[in-house]
Amino acid sequence: MSGGPMSVAQRLIAEHLVDGRTVPGEEIALRVDQTLTQDATGTLVMQELEALGLDRVRTEVSVQYVDHNILQADERNAEDHAFLRSAARRFGLWYSKPGNGVSHPTHMQHFGRPGRTLVGSDSHTCAAGALGMLAIGTGGLDVALAMAGEPLHLTMPQLWGVRLTGTLPPWVSAKDVILELLRRHGVKGGVNRILEYHGPGLGGLSAMDRHVIANMGAELGATASVFPADEAVRDFLRAQGREQDFHRIVADDGAGYDVAEEIDLSALEPLIARPHSPGDVVPVREAAGTPIGQAVIGSSANPGLRDFAVAAAMAAGRQSAPGVSLDINPSSREILQDLTRLGGTFQLIAAGARIHQAGCLGCIGMGQAPASGQHSLRTFPRNFPGRSGTADDSVWLCSPETATASALTGAITDPRDWAAGERMEPPRLDLPARASVNDAMLEAPLPPEQAAEVELVRGANISALPDLDPLPDTVSGPVLLTMGDNVSTDEISPAGARALPYRSNLPKLADFTLTRIDPEYPDRARKAGTHLLVAGENYGQGSSREHAAITPRLLGLRVVLAKSFARIHWQNLANFGVLALEFADPEDHGRISRGDELCLEHLHEQLGADRDSRELVVHNTTTGDDYPVRHRLSPRQRANVLAGGVIPALAGQPSRGQGTSAQGTSRR
Amino acid sequence: MSGGPMSVAQRLIAEHLVDGRTVPGEEIALRVDQTLTQDATGTLVMQELEALGLDRVRTEVSVQYVDHNILQADERNAEDHAFLRSAARRFGLWYSKPGNGVSHPTHMQHFGRPGRTLVGSDSHTCAAGALGMLAIGTGGLDVALAMAGEPLHLTMPQLWGVRLTGTLPPWVSAKDVILELLRRHGVKGGVNRILEYHGPGLGGLSAMDRHVIANMGAELGATASVFPADEAVRDFLRAQGREQDFHRIVADDGAGYDVAEEIDLSALEPLIARPHSPGDVVPVREAAGTPIGQAVIGSSANPGLRDFAVAAAMAAGRQSAPGVSLDINPSSREILQDLTRLGGTFQLIAAGARIHQAGCLGCIGMGQAPASGQHSLRTFPRNFPGRSGTADDSVWLCSPETATASALTGAITDPRDWAAGERMEPPRLDLPARASVNDAMLEAPLPPEQAAEVELVRGANISALPDLDPLPDTVSGPVLLTMGDNVSTDEISPAGARALPYRSNLPKLADFTLTRIDPEYPDRARKAGTHLLVAGENYGQGSSREHAAITPRLLGLRVVLAKSFARIHWQNLANFGVLALEFADPEDHGRISRGDELCLEHLHEQLGADRDSRELVVHNTTTGDDYPVRHRLSPRQRANVLAGGVIPALAGQPSRGQGTSAQGTSRR
Repeated sequence: MSGGPMSVAQRLIAEHLVDGRTVPGEEIALRVDQTLTQDATGTLVMQELEALGLDRVRTEVSVQYVDHNILQADERNAEDHAFLRSAARRFGLWYSKPGNGVSHPTHMQHFGRPGRTLVGSDSHTCAAGALGMLAIGTGGLDVALAMAGEPLHLTMPQLWGVRLTGTLPPWVSAKDVILELLRRHGVKGGVNRILEYHGPGLGGLSAMDRHVIANMGAELGATASVFPADEAVRDFLRAQGREQDFHRIVADDGAGYDVAEEIDLSALEPLIARPHSPGDVVPVREAAGTPIGQAVIGSSANPGLRDFAVAAAMAAGRQSAPGVSLDINPSSREILQDLTRLGGTFQLIAAGARIHQAGCLGCIGMGQAPASGQHSLRTFPRNFPGRSGTADDSVWLCSPETATASALTGAITDPRDWAAGERMEPPRLDLPARASVNDAMLEAPLPPEQAAEVELVRGANISALPDLDPLPDTVSGPVLLTMGDNVSTDEISPAGARALPYRSNLPKLADFTLTRIDPEYPDRARKAGTHLLVAGENYGQGSSREHAAITPRLLGLRVVLAKSFARIHWQNLANFGVLALEFADPEDHGRISRGDELCLEHLHEQLGADRDSRELVVHNTTTGDDYPVRHRLSPRQRANVLAGGVIPALAGQPSRGQGTSAQGTSRR
Repeated sequence: MSGGPMSVAQRLIAEHLVDGRTVPGEEIALRVDQTLTQDATGTLVMQELEALGLDRVRTEVSVQYVDHNILQADERNAEDHAFLRSAARRFGLWYSKPGNGVSHPTHMQHFGRPGRTLVGSDSHTCAAGALGMLAIGTGGLDVALAMAGEPLHLTMPQLWGVRLTGTLPPWVSAKDVILELLRRHGVKGGVNRILEYHGPGLGGLSAMDRHVIANMGAELGATASVFPADEAVRDFLRAQGREQDFHRIVADDGAGYDVAEEIDLSALEPLIARPHSPGDVVPVREAAGTPIGQAVIGSSANPGLRDFAVAAAMAAGRQSAPGVSLDINPSSREILQDLTRLGGTFQLIAAGARIHQAGCLGCIGMGQAPASGQHSLRTFPRNFPGRSGTADDSVWLCSPETATASALTGAITDPRDWAAGERMEPPRLDLPARASVNDAMLEAPLPPEQAAEVELVRGANISALPDLDPLPDTVSGPVLLTMGDNVSTDEISPAGARALPYRSNLPKLADFTLTRIDPEYPDRARKAGTHLLVAGENYGQGSSREHAAITPRLLGLRVVLAKSFARIHWQNLANFGVLALEFADPEDHGRISRGDELCLEHLHEQLGADRDSRELVVHNTTTGDDYPVRHRLSPRQRANVLAGGVIPALAGQPSRGQGTSAQGTSRR
C-alpha cells in the first residue's frame, strides 16, 4: 500500500498501522487516537476498564456521552449517569451531561480532527468519517482496550471508492444520497468495506451533510466511511472556532480503489426506506399518499442545524396535520441554541411540533413509539422491526424535507410535489458562519492526582461483570433457535424503554435476549444450559451493543452457526468467548431443525494457535448428518475464544503481550 | 344562603344549585357547565360514556386533553391518543393533541370563563378557580355523568375565607403563598372546605399567580379554591384575546365565611416542602446547603410564562452546576412560544437546561426520575413517596426562584441569598400584553351529523369496562392490609412510566394495585377474593384517579374501614360499589391485625333508602371484638353501593330519574 498514490483511507490506515498487512481479509492492528462511549454501552465499558485495572486512559481524547437513557422512568437511568460521571472523573475521560446532545454530532463539533482514528461503542461512530477521520464502531470491550492503549484489531477491508458528480436538485438532500446507496446495495452491500467518497460532487456537501452520509454507512454494513478533509471541513472547524485543528487530507492523484462506484447527485430524487429495513428503498413518489400518524426529525442520521432549519422553513406559518404528531429531537443543545437564535424553534413550536430534549430518544426506542400499524416517518438511520418500541410498527426512513412535507399533509409526500402545491421556493437558509459553541455541559478530565481519589458511584442496578469459563473441548447441546437472514442486534438484545434501563444489569438484561424472535428463549436457554443457535446471512447487523454477545453467553450459548456475520457482532462474539462458525454449504442451514442436538469435538486442537485450517465439522446427533463449517478468527481471537473471552484471556496472562499497554496497571 | 351578602363561592353555588340545601355536610347537586378530562383518566371516561349510551355531550364545553402519557415507551400511549381523538370526535368534545400542553393552564387560556362550573377527572382541576370559576376535581365517572347532563353531587363544604394583605417581597412568589397555607394547615387542612381568597393583597397577584395558589388547594384536601373575577382576570382574558368572556364576580360587602384566615404577603419568605409530603413545609433557609442532583421547573403548579421567564432571567449567562440536571417542562406550547419569543428559551438552553416537550412529565412520574436518595427540587404540587418513579426518592417542592437558584449553586439555596451573592436585582419581566394564541392543536367538536358516523379507534390495550356485581347482604373476609394515615391514590394505583400505559387496561393495571405498600397484595387479593382493607386518616388523598377504586374492587375489595377519607376517593369508592366506613372510635384502628377475618351483616337493610342511622357494626371473627363504624353516604350513594356501583345502578333503572339527562340516549 505504501509507495504509490494513496487514497484518504489508505493514508489514515498507513499512519496508524501497528501490526498486520493491509491485504483485504487479513487482520490488522491500528493505533487509536480517540474513543467515544455512550451511556447504553458505556456502563459496561467502565466496568471493563475496572476489570482491566486501568488507572487512566491512554488515548488523546476519550469522551463519555449520555444520550440514550434520558427518559428516566425510574432511578436506574439517573444512577447510571452518576456512575458514568464518576467513572469519567476516575479514569480521565471527558463527560457529556444528559441533555448536552447525541454523541456523534457533539463529538464532531468539539473533538473531531482530520487524520485521527476514533473508536466508539456505538455503531454510528463512523459518522466522524465526515471530517477525514477513520472512525469505527465496535463493541465496548474493544473501546475499553483502546482506552487502555491497545490497538484496534480488525479485518482489513476492501476500499470502495464512491465518486460523486453533479449537484443535489432542490428538495433533495444528503439523506437521499445514502438512501440511494442503500437502494443500490442493500444492508450487506458494505460488509468488509470502507467507503471513500471523492469527486467534484463533494463541493456541494457541507461537513454536516457528509456526517449524514457517513453515519448510515453503518446501515450498509461498512467498516467505515471516509471523506477528505477539504475546504468544507475547514469551514466547519472555523464555525466551531477550531480552525487550528484543521489538517488537509485529500486523496493523491491516481489513488485507486478495490471497488468503484459513481453517483450523479443531479439525478437523485427524494427516496424513502420502507418498513422494516434501511435497505428497502424506493422513490418517495412510489409511496405517496400513505396516511401517517407521526413524523420525527432528528437523530445522528440528520443532526445538523440545516436539517432542522429546513423543516422550520417549510413549517413556518403552517400546521401539522390533525392526527399527526410532528416530533423534533434536537441532536445537541448547541444546535438547538442556534435553531432558536435563527427563529426556527419558534416556527416549529407554532406549527404544532413537539420539541424534545436533545438526545437519541425514539431512534433507539426510548419513547415516541407509534401506535400499532400506524405509519411513522423518521429521519433516523434504522427501522428494524420493533426497534421503535411498538411490536407491530411501520417505520419509514427519509430526509427532513420528506418528513416535514408529510407531517404537513398527513400522508407520505414528495417534498417537490408539496412545494409545487404550496408554490414554495426551496428555502434559503442563512446559517450562521459561527456556530454557538457552549462546552459548559462537557466536564473536562480531572488531573491525575485528583482522579485517583474519585470513588465510583455504583447504584444498585449496576451489576458486576460475570465470570466467563473457558470453551470446553467438546460442545454438545441443542439448537434453541433457527433464524433467517439479517437478524439485528435489536432483535438479539433489544433497546427500548423497557430493556435499556437494564444495560448495566446483565442478569436482568438477559431476560430480554432474543425475545422478539422467541419470548421463551431465555427460559429455554436457562433450562438447556450449553446450547447453539443457527442463523442466516448478516447475523447481528445493526447496533454495536456487546450485550447481544454477552447475554446469550450468560444463558449458555457457546456456538453460533450462520451463513455470515455482521462485523461488529462477530468481533463481540469472539471477545466474549462465543464461537462464530459459517456454513461451508449455505444449504446446510435448512437441514438443521430447532431442537436438533449438535456436537463439536476437539475444539482446543482445532482452534489452536498453530492450526492452519479454518475448517471444522459439526455433527448432528439427531439426524446423523455432518456439516462442514469454517471460522474467520485470527490466532489472537482463537486464543480469546478458547479462554472464554478477552477478559479471562488477559487475566490468565502474566503480561498482556502488548508492550504498549500493560505497564502500570493492576487487575482487581 | 340567599338574601344576605354573598361571597364569590356562595354565588357560584347558588347559581348552579339544582338539588339539596347549602348546609355544610349535606349533599348538594350542581349544574355543570364545562368538563375536562386528561388521557390517564379519560380513556375510562370515554368507555363510561359508551356504557351510559351517550350520543353527544350536553355541557357547554367538554375538552379531552392529552398531557399525561406522552413519553410513548410502546404502542399503548399512541393507541390511547388515537382512541381519545376518535371518542372526542364521536361524542362532541374538543380534543387537545399531545404536545399542546397541560390541561389546567390550557383550559384556563382557551375555555375558562368567570361564573362557570367545571368538573374534571384530574384533582388539580381546582386551578381554574383562579378565574372566578367553581372548579372541582372528581373521579372520571362523575365527569362522564356531567357530560351526560347529570348534576354533580357533592357534600356541601364549609367556606374558608383567606384574606390576603400586603405585597410579596422580592424573590417570593405565588408558590410560597400556598406553601404557607400548607405549612399552617397540612394536607388535611382543607378537607370539606372551599377556600375563597379575598382582600387587598389580591391586587398584586396575576391570574396565573392565582392559578398556582388554586392548583395546590388540592394538596390541602380542599373541595375547591375560588378567586374573584376582577381586573386581574380581565387582564388575563384580554391577553388571550377573550375579553368578551369576562364577567365581573366579586364578594358582596359583608359577605361572611365559616372559617376565617389572614395572610400578610409582605411577611412571607421562600418556603419548601420536604420529602415526602406537600404539608411538611419549612423555610428554604432551614434546608439550605443540601446538595441536589436535579431541579425541575414546570407543571400545573407553576405553569405561567412568568414562572419560566424568572428562571430564564436568573439562569441567563450562568450555568447549571455540574452533577445537576436542570429540567424545564413547558406547560403549554403557547407558553413555550412566548418564552421563546422573549428570548427565555435561548437563555435556558445556553444555561444547560434540558427543554422537554409540553406536558405533565415528571410531575406524574412519567420520566425524570432521580437517582435513589438524590435530592430533587421541583415546582410540582406533590412529592408523595415514589411518585417520581424512584422508590427511594427525595423530592422537595418549591418556587421557580428557589429551584433555579439551587440548580445554579448545586445545593438548596434561598433565592434571596443567591441574589445577594450574585448582586442581582429582582428581574423585571417584560411579559407581553398579548399572549400567543394558537389553537391549531385544539380540534373543535364535529357537527352532530358527522360525529354520529365516527367509529371509535380501539387499540388492543383498551379493555372493556368490567361487570360489577351487587354488594352481598353479608360481607365476610380477611383484612389484607392495615395502613397508616394519608395513604395517597399514588400508592393505591401508581402513576409512573410502568403503570400509566395500562390505564386503559384494567385487568393489567390491577397488578400494580397497592404494590408500593405490599408487592404481594394483588396476588393475595386474587387468592382471597372478597376482602377488606383498614386505613388511617385521609385515606386516598391526592390524584382523582378512579382506578384506585376500580382495581382493588376488581381484586375483591368490598369494604374499606378508615379513620377518615379524602373527598374524591371516597366518592370514587361509592361510584364503584365499595363501602367506605369510618371508625366511630379511631382507636379501633389499632385493634385490627392484618389477616383478621371481619364480618358485616344485613347490609341491604342497614344501607336501605329509608334507614336514618349511619351506624353499623363490624364483627372481628378472629378476635371476637365488635367495632362501631359509620358511613357518610347519601341515599343516592347507598343505592349505588348496593347495586355494585353507579353503572350497574343506572343499568338496573328503566329511566335514570334525572329528567335532564336520560332522553335520547340508549344503553349498549
